Amino acid sequence: MKFSQLTIVALVLIGCESYIEKPGPRYVATKGEPWPKPQTQIKNDAYFVLRPQFFEFQVKNNAKCTLLHDAVLRYQSIISGLYESVDENLKFVSHQHHKKEWLSDNNFIGHLESAVVNLSGSCDDNDYPSQDMKENYSINITPDNAEIQSSTIWGILRGLETFSQLIYIADDYVSLRINTTSISDYPRFAHRGLLLDTSRHFIPVKKMLENLDAMAYNKLNVFHWHIVDDQSFPYVSRKYPELSEQGAYKPSQVYTPAVMQQIVEYARVRGIRVIPEFDTPGHTRSWGVAHPEVLTACGGNLAGEYGPMDPSKVETYNLLAGLLGEVSETFPDQYIHLGGDEVDFDCWESNANISKFMKKENITDYKGLESYFVQRVINIVDALKAKSIVWEEVFENGVKLPTETIVQVWKGPWEQTMSEVTLSGKTAILSSCWYLDHLDSYGDWQKFYNCEPYNFTGVDSQKKLVLGGEACMWAEVVNEFNVISRVWPRASAAAEKLWSAENVTDIKEATLRLEEHVCRMNRRGVGAQPPSGPGFCP
Amino acid sequence: MKFSQLTIVALVLIGCESYIEKPGPRYVATKGEPWPKPQTQIKNDAYFVLRPQFFEFQVKNNAKCTLLHDAVLRYQSIISGLYESVDENLKFVSHQHHKKEWLSDNNFIGHLESAVVNLSGSCDDNDYPSQDMKENYSINITPDNAEIQSSTIWGILRGLETFSQLIYIADDYVSLRINTTSISDYPRFAHRGLLLDTSRHFIPVKKMLENLDAMAYNKLNVFHWHIVDDQSFPYVSRKYPELSEQGAYKPSQVYTPAVMQQIVEYARVRGIRVIPEFDTPGHTRSWGVAHPEVLTACGGNLAGEYGPMDPSKVETYNLLAGLLGEVSETFPDQYIHLGGDEVDFDCWESNANISKFMKKENITDYKGLESYFVQRVINIVDALKAKSIVWEEVFENGVKLPTETIVQVWKGPWEQTMSEVTLSGKTAILSSCWYLDHLDSYGDWQKFYNCEPYNFTGVDSQKKLVLGGEACMWAEVVNEFNVISRVWPRASAAAEKLWSAENVTDIKEATLRLEEHVCRMNRRGVGAQPPSGPGFCP
Repeated sequence: MKFSQLTIVALVLIGCESYIEKPGPRYVATKGEPWPKPQTQIKNDAYFVLRPQFFEFQVKNNAKCTLLHDAVLRYQSIISGLYESVDENLKFVSHQHHKKEWLSDNNFIGHLESAVVNLSGSCDDNDYPSQDMKENYSINITPDNAEIQSSTIWGILRGLETFSQLIYIADDYVSLRINTTSISDYPRFAHRGLLLDTSRHFIPVKKMLENLDAMAYNKLNVFHWHIVDDQSFPYVSRKYPELSEQGAYKPSQVYTPAVMQQIVEYARVRGIRVIPEFDTPGHTRSWGVAHPEVLTACGGNLAGEYGPMDPSKVETYNLLAGLLGEVSETFPDQYIHLGGDEVDFDCWESNANISKFMKKENITDYKGLESYFVQRVINIVDALKAKSIVWEEVFENGVKLPTETIVQVWKGPWEQTMSEVTLSGKTAILSSCWYLDHLDSYGDWQKFYNCEPYNFTGVDSQKKLVLGGEACMWAEVVNEFNVISRVWPRASAAAEKLWSAENVTDIKEATLRLEEHVCRMNRRGVGAQPPSGPGFCP
Repeated sequence: MKFSQLTIVALVLIGCESYIEKPGPRYVATKGEPWPKPQTQIKNDAYFVLRPQFFEFQVKNNAKCTLLHDAVLRYQSIISGLYESVDENLKFVSHQHHKKEWLSDNNFIGHLESAVVNLSGSCDDNDYPSQDMKENYSINITPDNAEIQSSTIWGILRGLETFSQLIYIADDYVSLRINTTSISDYPRFAHRGLLLDTSRHFIPVKKMLENLDAMAYNKLNVFHWHIVDDQSFPYVSRKYPELSEQGAYKPSQVYTPAVMQQIVEYARVRGIRVIPEFDTPGHTRSWGVAHPEVLTACGGNLAGEYGPMDPSKVETYNLLAGLLGEVSETFPDQYIHLGGDEVDFDCWESNANISKFMKKENITDYKGLESYFVQRVINIVDALKAKSIVWEEVFENGVKLPTETIVQVWKGPWEQTMSEVTLSGKTAILSSCWYLDHLDSYGDWQKFYNCEPYNFTGVDSQKKLVLGGEACMWAEVVNEFNVISRVWPRASAAAEKLWSAENVTDIKEATLRLEEHVCRMNRRGVGAQPPSGPGFCP
């Protein structure tokens, strides 16, 4: 009852004129189809039966590479988990009635007892993923051999993920199968991110790790950690412990250095970068609990309130230099996100010292003042040999940005902004399409899926400056109880747009593949919500 | 960042013209304020400190009543849990710095070591909640005495819930407090329900029980179990086991008689009725996997498909009589919900036997045919001495309904329908306002809260026929991972509208109280989502 809207979606997807409800799931999941879709994949009907207890990965090179060794163990366990997930009842009934009926199936070509993992390049256990990392890999499963090949550990990680997704539970419910398949794969975009805000609501570590697992299952490679904001400051600084002592929601809702290290490491071994955001000069109210001197004391009818950081004070830059220096050590990624969005000028305008300062510095308007501030913060980051990402306002306000600064486009309509940013020669990442806090009643992953980052006016050289994009989970309305189901599988839509080829746009095909992918995530412990209507996980 | 819509909501709620972000939660939760709001409550500043380890309920009468005894144990445990939920860090710091500073507070009037539970009426351990049950109770906490009083066990249950909600964690983080308070309370409506659909997605028992807990915390008293539908038939029938054997999604996704008994009992001891829905003649596709003979075999361009139940066949009524007979034993409630919504006439129209049958029975249109069918099902239920609830279509199609049949209004606009149903002398429950599958990006509990069931044209005698309402969680887009956070606290808005006085409409006041209530539910193990923006649970 009561799914007229959903029915309409169904009709559009199915492409037929009348729809009669059927027993069973609305969309029948694919079997062994990867998400995101590989660049090229040839799959044959011939299949192996894979018995987890008699299957192993054979590491061809770099057998002592810890990253590789751990990844192989992880995927061995994921594959075993797939078999364990099969309902014991079904296994029993199936063993009784259909015992090994595949033995007489012409497509059955034997048991797969191993797959070679061939990392042809070098491995350094301290390797950290970066914007330039190569993630391409190939998989060849022939009647004679199964191999996952890449020149980099990051490619191997992606290949293992895809390999694990090729394995499926057969209709007999007792055997796992994998078809002979040939895949050559690489990401369309280098920057495929998910932003998670941990200031509006604190997200416990356990859920952060579950989310990183899901990112790996979707081949996302950047965890953009919007760690602090107006409401709370959960980042524990060794240098300025008072920031979280006074600015966190409560003493237990903080991320200690040890916890952050754990998160960074958990992400790293999955080929995921962690880029922390310390948004300034706006969105800094929680900094001011311990350090009110760095915020603008508003005057006029705002007297008593605090506004954005005070750009006229040396204390502001001293605190930022000290903190960002520490941040660049805590987070090994080359990039730090500096924010720069939604700066409210009213409070600056109401402060007499700031007016005086502007006169002295020959700054004529508040956009100019913001530029002055951001410029100094970027210089701090530059001095740390770090690179920066900023929200689009910083670009729009005309701040002179270092070549490698990335502009993150989040407002709508975004086409014009993407065009302008890339025309100016800056690199861009897109988020406008993928705001996960914007909800629709039914299956809104389709809306996220229909976004094409190249859909703006610009020449080829401009398109090349699009590094990718990020889905954003602002946490005003999510806490530990709904964050995972709110993000997944909606962020999966963005993940496929950012990995797969531009012509992968078939919603109907994707619908069936996403059914499988959600069940895959569920089985692996990720509490994703249903994607497209009634169903169950077989 | 990025919460312009939320900010607008905030502005509306706060009622001021400009808003500057503050550190900490957007809305500061109340302390010890019940949800739903009692009919009358006088609360004084004088307070007791309550130490769970030295607190007990003293049962004045009916000490051997199991329902009462179990309830007292349950609330003893909930109260202890409140203290245990306080962060150990905070307790430690607080003990160090603020040790018992309340001792010098004039409002401190001592330690509360007991509360009398006074069930003045009789108790029968087999009591089952009903539409006519009395739920009124009073609470008096004076400097001399604390007492929860009711003439019924159901009133005592509601009183214990309210009493437990009056207790709050003081600002010192180490003491629990309860203010001297006088409450006289009763529900505005007798029927305060939540519908949960377990056919579109199977919901495991654990989540069903978590949901019943939450219902008790919100004083909802009817669990409308939409147990089967087109997609799956998880109800295990002793008489017709093939229905779930073939119609469930899979063998493990069923509700066995033992499990249903467990759910009914879990609900009963919390004063919650369980009303099962067996929706016919539409929404029955899953019945037809094992019993295709009871469905209409479509003809014409629908050939090969099955439509609604076939009203022309005796087999249909035989199966229904057999099954509903069993259902009325499995579920002790007086009512069975018979559905009757969204019947598709195209398939009936395409079936020659049905045309013949209609001619024979002198039925001139398909509304008439539906009426014929529903009439016979209602007669079956009547013969079982059960009463029925039907969706509004049944009323609209002019079926002659027994006096006690309730009409559930679910379509919009609902005002006209409520007016018509009550004008005809039928009782009504309203759901149109509270469709939990309809999502908005931000805090849409307010939308649910703004619904007033009496907002239709009608005289007093019509208003009296409004028995209450139900929030509805259709499960197309919820599974075990998001069902609880999707329902709670959005259903809490409906719960307050259905319990509290008509003039309880102050969104601003409710916002602060709901902040507390969500944290209360979270602490008690209900994974409710944040209600209204940034925050945390103290």
